[in-house]
Amino acid sequence: MANLSSLMDSEVLRAYATYATIVLLKMMLMSVATAYFRITKKVFANPEDARAAAKGGDARKLLKTDEDVERVRRCHLNDIENVVPFVAIGLIYTLTNPDLASALLHFRIFTGSRLLHTVAYLLPLPQPSRGLMWIIGYFATISMAVSILRGVLYL
Amino acid sequence: MANLSSLMDSEVLRAYATYATIVLLKMMLMSVATAYFRITKKVFANPEDARAAAKGGDARKLLKTDEDVERVRRCHLNDIENVVPFVAIGLIYTLTNPDLASALLHFRIFTGSRLLHTVAYLLPLPQPSRGLMWIIGYFATISMAVSILRGVLYL
Amino acid sequence: MANLSSLMDSEVLRAYATYATIVLLKMMLMSVATAYFRITKKVFANPEDARAAAKGGDARKLLKTDEDVERVRRCHLNDIENVVPFVAIGLIYTLTNPDLASALLHFRIFTGSRLLHTVAYLLPLPQPSRGLMWIIGYFATISMAVSILRGVLYL
Repeated sequence: MANLSSLMDSEVLRAYATYATIVLLKMMLMSVATAYFRITKKVFANPEDARAAAKGGDARKLLKTDEDVERVRRCHLNDIENVVPFVAIGLIYTLTNPDLASALLHFRIFTGSRLLHTVAYLLPLPQPSRGLMWIIGYFATISMAVSILRGVLYL
Repeated sequence: MANLSSLMDSEVLRAYATYATIVLLKMMLMSVATAYFRITKKVFANPEDARAAAKGGDARKLLKTDEDVERVRRCHLNDIENVVPFVAIGLIYTLTNPDLASALLHFRIFTGSRLLHTVAYLLPLPQPSRGLMWIIGYFATISMAVSILRGVLYL
Repeated sequence: MANLSSLMDSEVLRAYATYATIVLLKMMLMSVATAYFRITKKVFANPEDARAAAKGGDARKLLKTDEDVERVRRCHLNDIENVVPFVAIGLIYTLTNPDLASALLHFRIFTGSRLLHTVAYLLPLPQPSRGLMWIIGYFATISMAVSILRGVLYL
């Protein structure tokens, strides 16, 4: 049996596990938000969904787009574009065994900026609040990527 | 040389590797399905693709959307929104060295529900079949995330 | 403390870390390209972005789609559909402790084909250049997935 059991003794890996899980859960919440707006506003993309919601009424009228639904979907796609690279680069960075304080700084800045990004997107707050939150999270990920390439480059 | 060689002695890691690879391959199949429908139905998003398919005919007519293509694309995006969190959270969960039986249960429920979700989306089956398959997979991932946060929380 | 410190002694893991980071950074560049085209061409999806760019002018006119922006977005989505499976399957493949030469071959072919895919998408080059680059990267990932399933299958 391999010694997976000792891996989580690493504080950096535990910190990574915690923050990566939090931002992934936040990203997953966007699916629920989309479903919520689709159902409450009766706005669907699939005919079979519209039929289930129309309950005998005219289902085709429910096949439309809605600004609230589209906003949540844009927020969700932005999460995919930013959270997924963070999770992947963050794991590789963790495997390079970085200093705990540096790692925590990167993970906390990214997680905080993404939570605020979602608030700024969904309320919405006037720009440049959302843009700023995006850039902060973006550079936290870039900084870990640079650290990886400086430490373990093998082409 | 590091002891990567012994990692796959862990049955949980081997199970993770198997199920994660299966759902990722299934997700990748959606690209082929999109390409298949685009080519057979002659429906393209890029002018250079339309020109290649028009073979001297009017390429602009092929720049349109088609319900079959859009359905596969929605199914693909739904996979990205659900399979990617499963793969990431599933790996972190695996690294917390869970009980083999619990891990297999999570991996099998997620994988089974996603395969059925694709069937329900592409046929399509009437709702709530697709919605139910989505929720089952969603909660399998949430359950692993809760297990991670209870086990290794480090903020 | 766990022995994360010795993991990066593995040359395969260092190669994976390098190539995965490169393709993830390339994928992240697509966000900057989208923002660049949105700002220089004044084409926005969110009313608050349009208001910030309109500077007192008619913000609603800036809420439109633009072919250059849509092309970058399609390229970005294609990256997500292909780079994310590579990063996930590539990591699992790395954990199966493959031969260094085979691993480097897979990583280099995928990375090279995706860089050329982006060039072919953004210029754009006539088909089938982009399609060919997509297929090469696709089969590099499939080949690693097959290697995983042959090596560690545990259902």
